[in-house]
Amino acid sequence: MTYFENFIKANQAYVDLHGRAHLPIKPKTRVAIITCMDSRLHVAPALGLALGDAHILRNAGGRVTDDVIRSLVISQQQLGTREVVVLHHTDCGAQTFKNADFVADLEERFQVDLQDRDFLPFENVEESVRQDVALLKASPLIPKDIAIFGAVYDVDTGRISPVQ
Amino acid sequence: MTYFENFIKANQAYVDLHGRAHLPIKPKTRVAIITCMDSRLHVAPALGLALGDAHILRNAGGRVTDDVIRSLVISQQQLGTREVVVLHHTDCGAQTFKNADFVADLEERFQVDLQDRDFLPFENVEESVRQDVALLKASPLIPKDIAIFGAVYDVDTGRISPVQ
Repeated sequence: MTYFENFIKANQAYVDLHGRAHLPIKPKTRVAIITCMDSRLHVAPALGLALGDAHILRNAGGRVTDDVIRSLVISQQQLGTREVVVLHHTDCGAQTFKNADFVADLEERFQVDLQDRDFLPFENVEESVRQDVALLKASPLIPKDIAIFGAVYDVDTGRISPVQ
Repeated sequence: MTYFENFIKANQAYVDLHGRAHLPIKPKTRVAIITCMDSRLHVAPALGLALGDAHILRNAGGRVTDDVIRSLVISQQQLGTREVVVLHHTDCGAQTFKNADFVADLEERFQVDLQDRDFLPFENVEESVRQDVALLKASPLIPKDIAIFGAVYDVDTGRISPVQ
């Protein structure tokens, strides 16, 4: 049995408990959270979010990329969000490699030319939050009156600490 | 008070309940789930995931983009995942606009030239899942023995239905 089949089975129980309810497509708090794909962060309980409360964007590291800007523009312009939280975390997979070595390994393993592809690793988690907040503030597609916050999640304690 | 301050307050309660526990950086099920940022989908409860179980990647639509490939390569090569689930959903924000109109609006509003930027809207949700599963299968950076599944989440019932 694959885990996918397992998820479908678990989902049956969720559906039985869930009941039918139509929530609006626009998030209630008008917040979008950008965070990491890490398995040790369940965003909704960690931030006290109910179903329908906030957009949650996740990639490796919680980095601000072109795809995050694409998603945020849709979140803000089509779905009305007005606040952004950049949430990175301790013990991140993006701290487990150096870009040049990783790219060289991949080129060897997959026989491809990745040129100057950046997999966006980082060393200092507070610094990566500040960098990504700065990228959002500098984007011509993010209105200047959007509130932008940065924070770090501790995977061992669950605590979220604001980053100035 | 911003919602960010509210989240930090809610997080205090989460930390008190959470206790200290170190889980491994590698996800237990070795699955990565690619899904939408939509506020009406809480991935962990809907799929029966415990903390530490799976990587969760989210953007507008749950589309397979270069940034998703970047994240998946890190997920697979650095953190050992072997299965991927592409999970789109009903009533998606990516179904609320046409790309050409959206780009023209943004260019007018922000006074920028977006050229042929694609915000990746779709019409048919099963078709978008199939397209994105095909993109993963065609990627030179995704090993051929990675299992890839597609499914649709119903935002009104919570039900996840596999897409063939």
